[in-house]
Amino acid sequence: MTLLVAVPDAAMLARLSPAAGEDVELIVWRPGDPPLPGVIDLLVIPYTVSYELLRSLAGQVRHIQSQSLGYDGADRFIPAGATFSNAVGVHEAPTAEMAMTLILASQRGWPDVGRNQDAQNWDRPMWPGLIGQRVLLIGVGGIGREFENRVGGFDVRLTRVARTARDDIHGIGELPALLPNADIVVLAIPLNDETRGLVDGAFLDLLPHGALVVNVSRGPIVDTDALVEHVRSGAVRSALDVIDPEPLPAGHPLWSLPGSLLSPHLGGAVQSMNTRVDPLVLSQINLLLRGEPPKNIVIDQGKGQ
Amino acid sequence: MTLLVAVPDAAMLARLSPAAGEDVELIVWRPGDPPLPGVIDLLVIPYTVSYELLRSLAGQVRHIQSQSLGYDGADRFIPAGATFSNAVGVHEAPTAEMAMTLILASQRGWPDVGRNQDAQNWDRPMWPGLIGQRVLLIGVGGIGREFENRVGGFDVRLTRVARTARDDIHGIGELPALLPNADIVVLAIPLNDETRGLVDGAFLDLLPHGALVVNVSRGPIVDTDALVEHVRSGAVRSALDVIDPEPLPAGHPLWSLPGSLLSPHLGGAVQSMNTRVDPLVLSQINLLLRGEPPKNIVIDQGKGQ
Repeated sequence: MTLLVAVPDAAMLARLSPAAGEDVELIVWRPGDPPLPGVIDLLVIPYTVSYELLRSLAGQVRHIQSQSLGYDGADRFIPAGATFSNAVGVHEAPTAEMAMTLILASQRGWPDVGRNQDAQNWDRPMWPGLIGQRVLLIGVGGIGREFENRVGGFDVRLTRVARTARDDIHGIGELPALLPNADIVVLAIPLNDETRGLVDGAFLDLLPHGALVVNVSRGPIVDTDALVEHVRSGAVRSALDVIDPEPLPAGHPLWSLPGSLLSPHLGGAVQSMNTRVDPLVLSQINLLLRGEPPKNIVIDQGKGQ
Repeated sequence: MTLLVAVPDAAMLARLSPAAGEDVELIVWRPGDPPLPGVIDLLVIPYTVSYELLRSLAGQVRHIQSQSLGYDGADRFIPAGATFSNAVGVHEAPTAEMAMTLILASQRGWPDVGRNQDAQNWDRPMWPGLIGQRVLLIGVGGIGREFENRVGGFDVRLTRVARTARDDIHGIGELPALLPNADIVVLAIPLNDETRGLVDGAFLDLLPHGALVVNVSRGPIVDTDALVEHVRSGAVRSALDVIDPEPLPAGHPLWSLPGSLLSPHLGGAVQSMNTRVDPLVLSQINLLLRGEPPKNIVIDQGKGQ
């Protein structure tokens, strides 16, 4: 039996071919391409893809492998008979790295320092820095753990929050008591019904004046209008890799308000990404060759098949 | 006996007064102010000061406490009879923090990402990131150690270089063999006759294409003209907190060349600086009250007094 594995581009095909083995037929095929005669055993979808394209694949694909960690919005498009795995282990470290980048840049004066570079202006105000700051990490999953690894050497006071309290981790219900003592809040939680709009006006009102809100997970965890209002007044600063909506429309105040640092959802997208995606795909291929289900299944429409 | 201690501003005087004790007379006085009737036992000079102002203080001051770590250029201005201490323990951590800020910003796309923010442009190329990069740290003193603490969690391959080889630290003579394997070079060494111009055209020629040169110590360690030439050709990128000359003149190519990230010598200058300066000054006061010399003396014109 040959395993039919579809990958989204010739580069990935070239990288995987030497390791895939003789029992694997590797092809380049993307959702939206004309249907194939056979059923795809493992479909690796493009890193940036519209989940809507998956809806029409019923009967054409058994397992779908995403290249993203988040999968909010995917569930209603996964066709009957198929499973959907997210890309555990690929994006957590670079996303935590982006959180550190945004924090350090904000605390050391960007975007102002960058604007001064472009204005050829050697202006030297004192910026806050990170040493001694009280960092509140909301989310202790993969991104949160990688963030802890990175922030550990920076002499901060770290407090951790998860959905439920355990050991020295606070529960999310304790936020009203924790927020007034947070200089920096890092959002590292998945988007779901519980977390949508978590950072609203009431949340922001509890933060100390000038606190920094960092979001590297999903935009709708923050109520953008409430954030704009608080950044505009100087009550908080923000450093956002994700934002609701994306892309941020031209003219939106967060492009230019003082205290607003933006990056365009670059979290996990680094040039070393393939060095983590390729082993994941090969590991899924090996599981399927052994007759086992793929790992990291987060949506299963194939039950009982 | 009362110890006469001069500090450069009323804010420091207010912070130190409660802890200074009854045997200390604290005054605000800066080099360039009219001479005092008595001799200043400990003169804390401003963070940003021209050392030339110290030359005329012969007979007016016993001990000078700088608020900087570097003291290149100070030696010929310290008056006879006086000692000069640098600010060990104040700037190492924030300077290492600035090195990490510059590295992360460069590796994740700044200054381009900042320029895209200002242009309201949601452009998302893949940037290199820091994971897996080969980092060559030149200098294992205070800044180097604080840098190691911080970079430790970022999944890099770190190689360390010092003036002389020891344990798993390479000697500076090994640079020709090390540079071809360095994706990122961090300069964390003092400026002296040995290090001036260390990073010249030959040094830069040995780096891999696109390597990042990070300087947080002193500008003249890098041959600026050679660096400009290598950045302009795309051979290397640079992220400089210090540069020769400072301030960088308007129209200089490093303000605007692609691959050039600049900050205006902000290394140790963070708002938490006072929390490290104040204990240092108090510790010097206590030593003098006990009849002992101040610590961290790096220039001593008082020998035999």
